[in-house]
Amino acid sequence: MAYNQVTPEFVEELKKICGTRVITGADINPDYSHDEMPIYGSKMPDVTIDVQSTEEIAAVMKACYENNIPVTVRGAGTGLVGGCTPVCGGVVICTMKMKNIIEYDFDNLVVRVQPGVLLNDLAQDALTHGLMYCPDPGEKFATLGGNVSTNAGGMRAVKYGSTRDYVRAMTVVLPTGEVVKLGAPVSKTSSGYSLINLLIGSEGTLGVITEITLKLIPAPKCTASLVVPYENLVDAIKTVPLFKKNHMNPQALEFFERPILISSEEFLGKAVFPRTVEGVECGAYLLVTFDANNEDELAAYLEEGVNLVLEAGALDVLVADTPAKIKDAWAARSAFLEGIEEQVEYYDECDVVVPVTKVAEFTLYCEQIAADYQFELKMFGHAGDGNLHIYATTGHKGANDAMPMGEFEDQVDDFMTKLYAKTTELDGQISGEHAIGYGKVKYLMDNVGPVNIRLQQEIKKVFDPKLILNPGKVCYKL
Amino acid sequence: MAYNQVTPEFVEELKKICGTRVITGADINPDYSHDEMPIYGSKMPDVTIDVQSTEEIAAVMKACYENNIPVTVRGAGTGLVGGCTPVCGGVVICTMKMKNIIEYDFDNLVVRVQPGVLLNDLAQDALTHGLMYCPDPGEKFATLGGNVSTNAGGMRAVKYGSTRDYVRAMTVVLPTGEVVKLGAPVSKTSSGYSLINLLIGSEGTLGVITEITLKLIPAPKCTASLVVPYENLVDAIKTVPLFKKNHMNPQALEFFERPILISSEEFLGKAVFPRTVEGVECGAYLLVTFDANNEDELAAYLEEGVNLVLEAGALDVLVADTPAKIKDAWAARSAFLEGIEEQVEYYDECDVVVPVTKVAEFTLYCEQIAADYQFELKMFGHAGDGNLHIYATTGHKGANDAMPMGEFEDQVDDFMTKLYAKTTELDGQISGEHAIGYGKVKYLMDNVGPVNIRLQQEIKKVFDPKLILNPGKVCYKL
Repeated sequence: MAYNQVTPEFVEELKKICGTRVITGADINPDYSHDEMPIYGSKMPDVTIDVQSTEEIAAVMKACYENNIPVTVRGAGTGLVGGCTPVCGGVVICTMKMKNIIEYDFDNLVVRVQPGVLLNDLAQDALTHGLMYCPDPGEKFATLGGNVSTNAGGMRAVKYGSTRDYVRAMTVVLPTGEVVKLGAPVSKTSSGYSLINLLIGSEGTLGVITEITLKLIPAPKCTASLVVPYENLVDAIKTVPLFKKNHMNPQALEFFERPILISSEEFLGKAVFPRTVEGVECGAYLLVTFDANNEDELAAYLEEGVNLVLEAGALDVLVADTPAKIKDAWAARSAFLEGIEEQVEYYDECDVVVPVTKVAEFTLYCEQIAADYQFELKMFGHAGDGNLHIYATTGHKGANDAMPMGEFEDQVDDFMTKLYAKTTELDGQISGEHAIGYGKVKYLMDNVGPVNIRLQQEIKKVFDPKLILNPGKVCYKL
Repeated sequence: MAYNQVTPEFVEELKKICGTRVITGADINPDYSHDEMPIYGSKMPDVTIDVQSTEEIAAVMKACYENNIPVTVRGAGTGLVGGCTPVCGGVVICTMKMKNIIEYDFDNLVVRVQPGVLLNDLAQDALTHGLMYCPDPGEKFATLGGNVSTNAGGMRAVKYGSTRDYVRAMTVVLPTGEVVKLGAPVSKTSSGYSLINLLIGSEGTLGVITEITLKLIPAPKCTASLVVPYENLVDAIKTVPLFKKNHMNPQALEFFERPILISSEEFLGKAVFPRTVEGVECGAYLLVTFDANNEDELAAYLEEGVNLVLEAGALDVLVADTPAKIKDAWAARSAFLEGIEEQVEYYDECDVVVPVTKVAEFTLYCEQIAADYQFELKMFGHAGDGNLHIYATTGHKGANDAMPMGEFEDQVDDFMTKLYAKTTELDGQISGEHAIGYGKVKYLMDNVGPVNIRLQQEIKKVFDPKLILNPGKVCYKL
């Protein structure tokens, strides 16, 4: 796209709207040039603005629209697909200062928030009122605006659904600077095309979300977890559909393989999970959490759950039914990504989602083809959703034993292309929860095909006729 | 829109695709000219085709696209907003012959169906496998294609959500005749713009849904209901938020007022609900159903529910905990619409959704302004969702005591305009579950405003550049 350059006159125009929060040149925080996966691109913007209100954003967007300047919106920058990287430069709008929890409605069980509220802050605050914000992505310090923009999933999606299921209404600034309200604080609607569902998961490419109304539920009164080692992942995955079939609806149902557990426990310096059971090496694990509204109900779930996994071939089962034990059981799982970041030199990841019953087939395929490459493989994921996180890594941090970056990128690209083709073959989709961003556009195009992509591109033009908002993302290659 | 006329040559072209199922002129079934609300228009199409496959529909759409002929898709024709009325004539495609339940996947808990499968048929068939298809609209003999197209709600939406929440994937024929698959049989995804959510609730204006993959759940093992009379609706509505707040999550939570109950019980010839309690006349009722996976859990819900409603001001509470009693308790509620259809000469209805806490305010407003008109008012709805069904009726069927149709239409239009303005004031939306169709386009436009409508109209053009598919509906006035 042929955008205009940011001129000193244009910067002055922005300063009339946002004053000293308009930052340019060497004063720009380099963090604003990328998200947590700089492997998917990094580029310094010309201007950054920590915006404070819908009105400000509308005025900034209008100025950028009139001057044909690209705009990229970011929250906490915790994305994993290069979604907030300003790949065409221009203006970066950061919503982190818009962090007010505006108002709870305790009867209709909704809360209005600004987009820069952190997931963790809302989750904790809601709990003080006895309420739960159900989506629980691994990254607790993402903004809610970012969560909505990526339709973030997380641990509890298997029972409670993804972020999409909790968005009731939003205020959006369109690329033209027009402000539109979508949805309503009601629990059902059949009132025209669901524009709000189009905005959810659109990764900041269709409009800037400036206020969100989210659904809450009364917090379950108690939880407990099962730690379940298996000889191999095939056995573990076979168990997964049995929970729902038997009327157990776990809040979380995670799987992981031995290598990622060991490296995570090494990272934490604490080992909780059994490594062998009666001489048999544990190759894979399920981590299951139940919630309930009273102790009797919870005890019944645990008893049935224990029987179910043992009958289905688990090597053993450990019950974590005190806060300390639950914390221990989840510590290793929660540290997977952080552990990888701290321990390896380079990594890339894939976040595909396949039918629950295809998880083992997919991971076996991964292991099989990974043998042709020099990188290491680490696999875990949301078993109950069929959502896998597959990490290809090389080298130990600082040990100078990684393959060269260019070589790693080539190998990974080849590997990932095969993985995504397998995903398509298994009726899966490119991303379960991290979204498409900049890094996965070509894989999305292959997965959904040209007619679907054409519709997406034309919808993009409906909202953003000059293609100035977050260019190069989701359905448009630069 | 300037469409072409259907010519004998064009009919021959259609017959090459669908043979003798292409019907024209006087042979056309007049049912195909309207839905269950002919008050919103009735028009004979030029051609009807009972289609049998995706391929046929694609070929028909391609022919209509090339010849600029309008096409309207219908299922069972049970809609309530004129959504399947072929207001511009042309071709009507009926999907009722596409009634195969194609395949269950008992591990991933999904089922693939053709769009002409009746809700009742899937619901019954799923139960034989121990599974529940959660959406439960009042009209059991609608097609699933129609349910998806209107994002149908129903009794169980308060606990389980609307049809939208159960659609995993679909095959769609675009107005151009191109075939596209949307979604996947997976439980979460963040893979580009959610075109599937755009199609859901789009009332056959963006594409023809030719196959659907739906989510199922293991059927709850037991249910029971509470019949709860109140002195007035304000008292009844005050109770509604308390269920969820107290960790009771009823499967259904309905309200109705005395007049609709009395006429429904008269229609059925059987009275179950108390009319007075200890000398106090019952002005309104809640009907609450709990489901559970064992009798203990259910008994606990019932006990807590009884205590809750009595403390909150109910006049009495009746427990319906046997199949016969539950059937009796629901018979009157289920017959509301049928009763109205059989008993009155003319009627119109509104299906707004407002925040749960605003239901009483809205109904009081309705009663207050209805005093200015000569029609009768009957009100009921899904209290747990804030979704109201408000019927304006005139005359007793066949008694020749109704006001003239034109006069009724004028009065109702004036009344409804005020109701929809109040809906907007209360942060509500035009339709909770019946959708917009032909009858409510102008109210939608007022409710969501010009920017939103412009986006909807431009999205319509992305899918349907010649505006041939179901013209005059949702966001486009003729």
